[in-house]
Amino acid sequence: MGPHPAVAAIRLAVRRVLHDILNDHQPSGGHTGLPAPGAHPDRAAERPPSPLVLVACSGGADSMALASALAFEAPKLGIRAGGVTVDHGLQPGSDLRADEVTLRLRELGLDPVVSVAVTVGREGGPEAAARDARYAALDAIAERHGATAVLLGHTRDDQAETVLLGLARGSGIRSLSGMAAVSGAGGRYRRPFLHLDRQTARRACMVQSLPVWDDPHNADPAYTRSRLRHEGLPALEKALGKGVVEALARTAQLSRDDADALDTWASQAEASVRDATGLLECAKLYALPPAVRRRILRRAAIRAGAPAGSLFARHIEEVDRLITGWRGQGAINLPGKVVAQRQGGRLVIRQG
Amino acid sequence: MGPHPAVAAIRLAVRRVLHDILNDHQPSGGHTGLPAPGAHPDRAAERPPSPLVLVACSGGADSMALASALAFEAPKLGIRAGGVTVDHGLQPGSDLRADEVTLRLRELGLDPVVSVAVTVGREGGPEAAARDARYAALDAIAERHGATAVLLGHTRDDQAETVLLGLARGSGIRSLSGMAAVSGAGGRYRRPFLHLDRQTARRACMVQSLPVWDDPHNADPAYTRSRLRHEGLPALEKALGKGVVEALARTAQLSRDDADALDTWASQAEASVRDATGLLECAKLYALPPAVRRRILRRAAIRAGAPAGSLFARHIEEVDRLITGWRGQGAINLPGKVVAQRQGGRLVIRQG
Repeated sequence: MGPHPAVAAIRLAVRRVLHDILNDHQPSGGHTGLPAPGAHPDRAAERPPSPLVLVACSGGADSMALASALAFEAPKLGIRAGGVTVDHGLQPGSDLRADEVTLRLRELGLDPVVSVAVTVGREGGPEAAARDARYAALDAIAERHGATAVLLGHTRDDQAETVLLGLARGSGIRSLSGMAAVSGAGGRYRRPFLHLDRQTARRACMVQSLPVWDDPHNADPAYTRSRLRHEGLPALEKALGKGVVEALARTAQLSRDDADALDTWASQAEASVRDATGLLECAKLYALPPAVRRRILRRAAIRAGAPAGSLFARHIEEVDRLITGWRGQGAINLPGKVVAQRQGGRLVIRQG
Repeated sequence: MGPHPAVAAIRLAVRRVLHDILNDHQPSGGHTGLPAPGAHPDRAAERPPSPLVLVACSGGADSMALASALAFEAPKLGIRAGGVTVDHGLQPGSDLRADEVTLRLRELGLDPVVSVAVTVGREGGPEAAARDARYAALDAIAERHGATAVLLGHTRDDQAETVLLGLARGSGIRSLSGMAAVSGAGGRYRRPFLHLDRQTARRACMVQSLPVWDDPHNADPAYTRSRLRHEGLPALEKALGKGVVEALARTAQLSRDDADALDTWASQAEASVRDATGLLECAKLYALPPAVRRRILRRAAIRAGAPAGSLFARHIEEVDRLITGWRGQGAINLPGKVVAQRQGGRLVIRQG
């Protein structure tokens, strides 16, 4: 008798990602840490130590399920499996929680297991600040231990929530593209559960008798994501049907591919619309599709010093009207003291 | 004292669209139905009759507000303003309702005013069937009366709902692009209120003492759009903040521009990936960005006879794997008995 379907599902998801990691990181393109067939036995001593893959674990169901699957699959592929938990210090007793999680990860056979305490700032709101602190800590731990990859437990449900959060910004398809399956420097971060629903992860913990922790933040209506999870998304499912989460996750993937293609186009087109002195020529910009032109304008504004996070669609639309609706209007002020103006058929975007 | 701000807003929205219509349809590019300055007086007799713009009116607040604004603005631009109401025959007494609406439209000074009864089929569900019947009737009326344009009362709120309905399909950014401000053959249909909120239209009716009719379908939870309007969207606003409707409408516009640009790219790239016999070359397809490649595959499947409405993202993904994940897999069956297979480095898509 095989494992419970939920356990089989989480293991398969992790196995696939571990194969990808090996393929991406072994210069010979081999699938395992074992010497390639036909390799000279004397060379065995020279082979690199088996790669280390870490799981980032909060102790919640998603990341505990992920840790259990990593512990099960990694040894079969000659991969060392470790774990890291981040203590954000946002709740009383969070240090004890972190100790408990490290204990659980060790019980699963992970090694090394690291707990790291971070200080969460305020920049960009509580959720963004916690995320920034978390990734900085994970980056540092991965570097220190020479980890090939860090697995993150985000599920399809998290992805759906992220798409809706992006939708609420109304800033275009890049913000609809959610989280990437592979991200970070050198593809360090991997999200094996991005196509798996949260319920499967939870069930996998249950049938493996893994105790899980429910982060009270996840149910705190002070957090946008929590309101979305417990009220917004269920109401949307009630109105639109149960397939909404899957549809949102698929939208993320399609939007990501579309945004990538358009970014490529914009970066190729940009060179062709600059004159000999490097200024943007309005007539040439005018001839481009609006989607490409606006991406070029956005890139130019960011390069001139406008902070990407404060540069909204309405800013770019206003700059675009210097091209498409020219009636002698004055300079446009953008975030970061960047100014855009039209001069003699050229668009000048610079810090004022 | 000027008009109430809500009335000023609806009139401004209509005035802008009427200017666009005149610009699009007058061969001289002039702004009005009057002879161009300097035109020879003898030619006045030859000038075409003033253009007719119709408003499609259900008697609801949005389209009544639209009718009132058209009645006010059209004469000032030398445009004749008419109205049409469609009796879908879906509710008892709908014929009396239609009579009442025509009466109201005549009271506003519109002429001609037409009421047309349609038979709603079943294809594609009740909402799609009603829509198809309505547009067929509007097309016929516009042709018969030689109308230059038909104004539709869709608001920003309708647009937000349409984006969410598209999101639920999970079929990519084209379905997120909502309704166009200009659509139909020759740009016949115009939506002046697409950037205006429903509340403004309602208020404009109130302050002008225009009686409005609340379609019971709009509150009937049997309809997806109604559930979305009364439950889904309010819950989403509660979770994400009041700006959601505006963000969804902006997403529609950005998605539309992006989808248009990628369609352009795909149609240009398509010629370059076909061999001398017109077959798609897998190696060349492989070199394209996924977003462009999948659009080419989708177009090819539709051209081979697959019905666009039944061709989902997962179908195209499977065909795409013949290019990106080739391991000798067999033919892929697509809707409309269309078959896609890889043969000797070429992709063959045809009706089987």
